[in-house]
This record gives sequence, C-alpha cells and structure tokens, in this order.
Amino acid sequence: MTRASTFTASLPYWLEGRQLPNALPTDEDRMALVHDLADLNWRAGNGGPFAALVVDSATGDVVSAGVNVVLASGLSSTHAEVVALSLAQTTSGSWDLSSGRQLELVVNWRPCVMCYGATIWSGVRRLVIAGSGPECEELTGFDEGPMRDDWREQLEARGISVTSDVLRDRALRTFAEYGASGSTVYNARRD
Amino acid sequence: MTRASTFTASLPYWLEGRQLPNALPTDEDRMALVHDLADLNWRAGNGGPFAALVVDSATGDVVSAGVNVVLASGLSSTHAEVVALSLAQTTSGSWDLSSGRQLELVVNWRPCVMCYGATIWSGVRRLVIAGSGPECEELTGFDEGPMRDDWREQLEARGISVTSDVLRDRALRTFAEYGASGSTVYNARRD
Repeated sequence: MTRASTFTASLPYWLEGRQLPNALPTDEDRMALVHDLADLNWRAGNGGPFAALVVDSATGDVVSAGVNVVLASGLSSTHAEVVALSLAQTTSGSWDLSSGRQLELVVNWRPCVMCYGATIWSGVRRLVIAGSGPECEELTGFDEGPMRDDWREQLEARGISVTSDVLRDRALRTFAEYGASGSTVYNARRD
Repeated sequence: MTRASTFTASLPYWLEGRQLPNALPTDEDRMALVHDLADLNWRAGNGGPFAALVVDSATGDVVSAGVNVVLASGLSSTHAEVVALSLAQTTSGSWDLSSGRQLELVVNWRPCVMCYGATIWSGVRRLVIAGSGPECEELTGFDEGPMRDDWREQLEARGISVTSDVLRDRALRTFAEYGASGSTVYNARRD
C-alpha cells in the first residue's frame, strides 16, 4: 500500500479569484463578508455553510479568508476556521499569530469543539461570532461536538476575548436555507 | 498583500522514508510504534513528542502514520492526530473513514480538545491511547485545552470506543525526557 505523506487544502476557485476588501473597519463589516462567503460556499457544493476571516483587530486588514472545504478537499478537519487560521499562518510564516499585531477570528457561529481548540492554539486574541446557541445544530443538522458550559471563560482565561451576536439573524437565515436544501451533512458515521 | 490560498503539511523526511510494518496485530504493537515515532519526532525538532497511527482494527494494516509537525509546518493545527487522520483521508480519498472497514486512531495520550473534535469528525470507530491523566501537561508543559469530564462517554455515544492505558509508562518516559530538554512548547501567546 502506498501511504500519503502530504496533505493539502485549497480555497475554491470562486474565493481564490475573488477581490476582497483590504480593510474592514467594523465587526459588522467583517461579519457581513463572512455571511456572504458562507452562503456562497454551500451553494457551490464545497462544504457546509460556514466561513471565517482572520483580521487585524486594529486596522481591519483581512489576513485570510476561509470557508469549509470538507467536501471539496476530502479532509474532515478543513472547517472554515482551520482553513482561515492555516492560511493566515502560511502567509505569516508562523504557527503563532500572536506575534506582532493583534489578530482575530471572525466566524458565523460558535466554533465546533475541534475549531474551538484550533482557535486556542492559533494565537488569535479575539473571537467574533454571530451567535452561540443550539440554533446552528437545529437548523443545519450538524453535530458541533461536546463543548464545556464555560467555553467562553476558558477562552478569556487564555487571553482570547469573545464578542457574540454580530449580525445574528443573517446567520440563522443561511443555516435555515442550508437545512432546507437537503445538502450533505458531513458528520462522519452517519449510518 | 498577497494572501495564501493553499496550505500543505508533510511528514518529516525521516518518517516519509521509513519502512513501516504492513500490519501490527495487537494494541501493544501499534502503541510501541507510536512511542518510537513520538520520541524520534521531538528529538528531530519537528514538533512535540506526539505521534498517531490510523490502523485497520481487524487486520492491523497501518493506513497512515502522523507526527506533530507544528514547528516544521508552521501550522498550529498540525498535531499528530490531525496529520494521521488527514493522511488517511488523502490515501482513501474520503473525508469519512467510516466507509468500508473499521479504522482506529492510536495515539500516545488523550487528544487535546482540537484533536478530540478532529477524531469525532474523522469517521474512526475506536480510539486507543496510552493514558489520559494530567501527567502529559505536567511533564511537557503543554496546555491540552478545556475538556469535558465526560469526554469518554461523549465519544462512545457517537460510536467511538475508547481503550486506554496501553504502554502507559513509556509515554510518561517520553514526556519526561521532552520536558527536561527545554524544547519549544508551541502553545501560542506564550508571553
């Protein structure tokens, strides 16, 4: 048997070729772009209705944009947050995004348990989310994994501040449309 | 600014070129190889003292071998488990390792919170670990993240059985040697 020794994930063509704004001043500006990308992503069939940005908190510079590419890449860990963080680390050449400027992760719901850990290890100093309740699982059918009740305090204890409920209704609309579409819910072991 | 649109992680040359056994019949055989690779990995400077295998539970076929390459790849999510699972998915061509044969993840301690989630989303049906207590964090200095007390039951509720304490002492020896070496602890935001 030949075993793989390398794995790779790439942005879909429509996002790679897309002209993104250089700077997004407000939380709402940042989240509006996340919502646009999340909506485009599931409709294009790349993966779930999720997108994430790594942004310079002070200047609004967009360091990276990621979407969920589980279906396109064939890799179950390529959720939007892992993609955005990995691309930001590729651009910056470091596994620690806390060097130099303060960076933040902007994503259209509370991360799943895997991406929650990925956020902690990445070096971002702030997490901006559209919401955090059970609505995401209820509307999309995804399992988000077993999270601790004190997930927010655990982030803050590690120097990562949390801002929630940014353009929340738009997230719910995307999830509802995704859920109604009959798209593949790519949680493993479905049967 | 030019933004990355692709990220890649590869096995270190000493592992890519290594002849691995085709089959490892017992849990102890599997864990002994994991311990060997974990020990080689940190001494080579690729990342932390962690390794993981994806193995066919029934036949012992080694589908993939991964090590922690955070330092070598510059990507904070490339823990041993994510590497092994991603390589197995690359070889199999699917994000769901639960299709066909039953595969398991063998790793030299309880996964961190990120890799815990990655395990759930991967499709493996069994997790084999050398141990699960605070000793790993105490000996190595790594933060493993906020885990739920019922982490094991949560896995089993999702169809993933857990076997622990396989060659546990050998794991502790590796962690102690790593901790005493003064190697880089790559948790972000160290200062």
